[in-house]
Amino acid sequence: MASVRTPDPNPGWLSEIALDETRSRVPILYVEAVPVRVDTYGQIEHVGVLLRGSSSGELTRTLVSGRVYHNESVREALLRNLEKDLGPTAFPQLPASLTPFTVAEYFPLPGVAPLHDPRQHAVALAYVVPVSGECDPRQDALELTWLTPDEAMEPEVLDDMEGGRGHLLKQALAWSGALPR
Amino acid sequence: MASVRTPDPNPGWLSEIALDETRSRVPILYVEAVPVRVDTYGQIEHVGVLLRGSSSGELTRTLVSGRVYHNESVREALLRNLEKDLGPTAFPQLPASLTPFTVAEYFPLPGVAPLHDPRQHAVALAYVVPVSGECDPRQDALELTWLTPDEAMEPEVLDDMEGGRGHLLKQALAWSGALPR
Amino acid sequence: MASVRTPDPNPGWLSEIALDETRSRVPILYVEAVPVRVDTYGQIEHVGVLLRGSSSGELTRTLVSGRVYHNESVREALLRNLEKDLGPTAFPQLPASLTPFTVAEYFPLPGVAPLHDPRQHAVALAYVVPVSGECDPRQDALELTWLTPDEAMEPEVLDDMEGGRGHLLKQALAWSGALPR
Amino acid sequence: MASVRTPDPNPGWLSEIALDETRSRVPILYVEAVPVRVDTYGQIEHVGVLLRGSSSGELTRTLVSGRVYHNESVREALLRNLEKDLGPTAFPQLPASLTPFTVAEYFPLPGVAPLHDPRQHAVALAYVVPVSGECDPRQDALELTWLTPDEAMEPEVLDDMEGGRGHLLKQALAWSGALPR
Repeated sequence: MASVRTPDPNPGWLSEIALDETRSRVPILYVEAVPVRVDTYGQIEHVGVLLRGSSSGELTRTLVSGRVYHNESVREALLRNLEKDLGPTAFPQLPASLTPFTVAEYFPLPGVAPLHDPRQHAVALAYVVPVSGECDPRQDALELTWLTPDEAMEPEVLDDMEGGRGHLLKQALAWSGALPR
Repeated sequence: MASVRTPDPNPGWLSEIALDETRSRVPILYVEAVPVRVDTYGQIEHVGVLLRGSSSGELTRTLVSGRVYHNESVREALLRNLEKDLGPTAFPQLPASLTPFTVAEYFPLPGVAPLHDPRQHAVALAYVVPVSGECDPRQDALELTWLTPDEAMEPEVLDDMEGGRGHLLKQALAWSGALPR
Repeated sequence: MASVRTPDPNPGWLSEIALDETRSRVPILYVEAVPVRVDTYGQIEHVGVLLRGSSSGELTRTLVSGRVYHNESVREALLRNLEKDLGPTAFPQLPASLTPFTVAEYFPLPGVAPLHDPRQHAVALAYVVPVSGECDPRQDALELTWLTPDEAMEPEVLDDMEGGRGHLLKQALAWSGALPR
Repeated sequence: MASVRTPDPNPGWLSEIALDETRSRVPILYVEAVPVRVDTYGQIEHVGVLLRGSSSGELTRTLVSGRVYHNESVREALLRNLEKDLGPTAFPQLPASLTPFTVAEYFPLPGVAPLHDPRQHAVALAYVVPVSGECDPRQDALELTWLTPDEAMEPEVLDDMEGGRGHLLKQALAWSGALPR
């Protein structure tokens, strides 16, 4: 464990062992973002959904999501994860207030709550983030799809979303006044 | 009153007489905006305060503010009033959600509430709006000043603000996490 | 119109003629409340829906709703309308913040927006309000039904709701984290 | 570390060693509550501030605050910590929505942010919670004082608050519309 206290060349990163151990002890803090395209009036026109290879080899849909690191601010974590998932030219407009549209709770046991993460108990601060630039998903995200609110609320999209995030997407659209009639 | 029911060349506008009468009957709905400059992380760096000639000839400080017209949506009213007060190239980023940071209540009698408007009982939906372009105040606004949160919270700025809007500005900064320590 | 300026024995009330005229000039400010029963953790268990006789003689479902009067505060209007629709022993717990869960816009023309009011352009500040006492609807409300979130989200309930308020109810449950999976 | 994985007689509790180690790895999730007394209209009349003996032996003022345990929901953590600090008969009214009035970030290094916790990087979901019963602080809280918003905003109260929580209290009152003029 000594290595944890020495200066860290990759601050925020934990070894797999240290991370697993930590996940068994405390809820892990995440930020989550629903990328959107808005019109001049701020009204949502499209919602960005990521197509991602899951650990089990299936393709699933997901949102921008990632841990808040030790000594990292929530705003820094939000921008870092947006850049990680949408690329450096997405130009996200981070919210003026840190108040999230919801606090999303993921439990390791499926079925106890709408959201589920087999790896851990995670609590995510969830934001709607307008992006104005070009999105170029990197890493394990294969593709970013822009869906209209109507398309995003189709049962087959919602059901495909990893960890029950269709529920979260519905909350994002309700909060934005963009829920289809 | 017949003219009110005929097609209106200036929709939303009321004659002075009709407006006075309406103001004696119902609370008048307003939108209000605190224009801000934010950094990459969405954190407020500067707050835009308008210097405006008041009806009594004094110079007072104020925020972007205006009525919601009949049959106009809140988003349309917000954009129209931002353009009226900041000019056409301000490029305001309207919020993804219509939920205001506060509901501001102005009463005609001074002293009953923090906010006061001698003309009317007004209820304003108040938003923080990042602007990325050049602001060029028109009409009766003489000047737009960009203040740091520290400068904006100086008592002499707060006390100068029309109708008690220093109180509203404090709420905007508190909500944005930009209140000075 | 002189009578409007003389001291008013029924403050807030307007004659039908004055109200009609006002409705043709400005958006009318409303408050709207979704009454709920919550458990010890604040989680919604039941949602209160009013069964009301509409002007056309049909029975429709609705929420607590009413105008904000001239010189009345939003909190006063909210409590007055809760008492009007739920009776004097409902013991509503008004929210600590006036920030509504949404701003609901009703337009007179059907189809332009999810919400519709043939009488007027209305803008409602919408709140979720826990009630702990006995509800005894008065006036034109025939009955108050307590529905679980699952029952409230049934299409036949949502479609029955006056003016498109099923949409508003969905937003209330989404904001409260009580949307069924 | 094996003990962490065996069934835990005190679920949520970590040994001091395990907790210290965890605190060096990830931000620790907290809930924080500002207890308030409200009038019939939901308006704050008094704010509850705890007088507590700090680790250095001084008396400091603080708010209701505590960790979210592993596999505990945010609502459960909020109720548990309210009961821990205010006693079993406080009858707190937990909010209908989990959206906090702010996300409070505490960093171990003083001066980098308004809030500071020498033990750890903590992120707290902060709520305003009306309490209607008798408060009987237990444990290390010596006393609960009810202050009017005016009294709570006195510099000597704000400056006495542990970790910079005077800043948080100001945000709570601003959000509730209870900031003194």
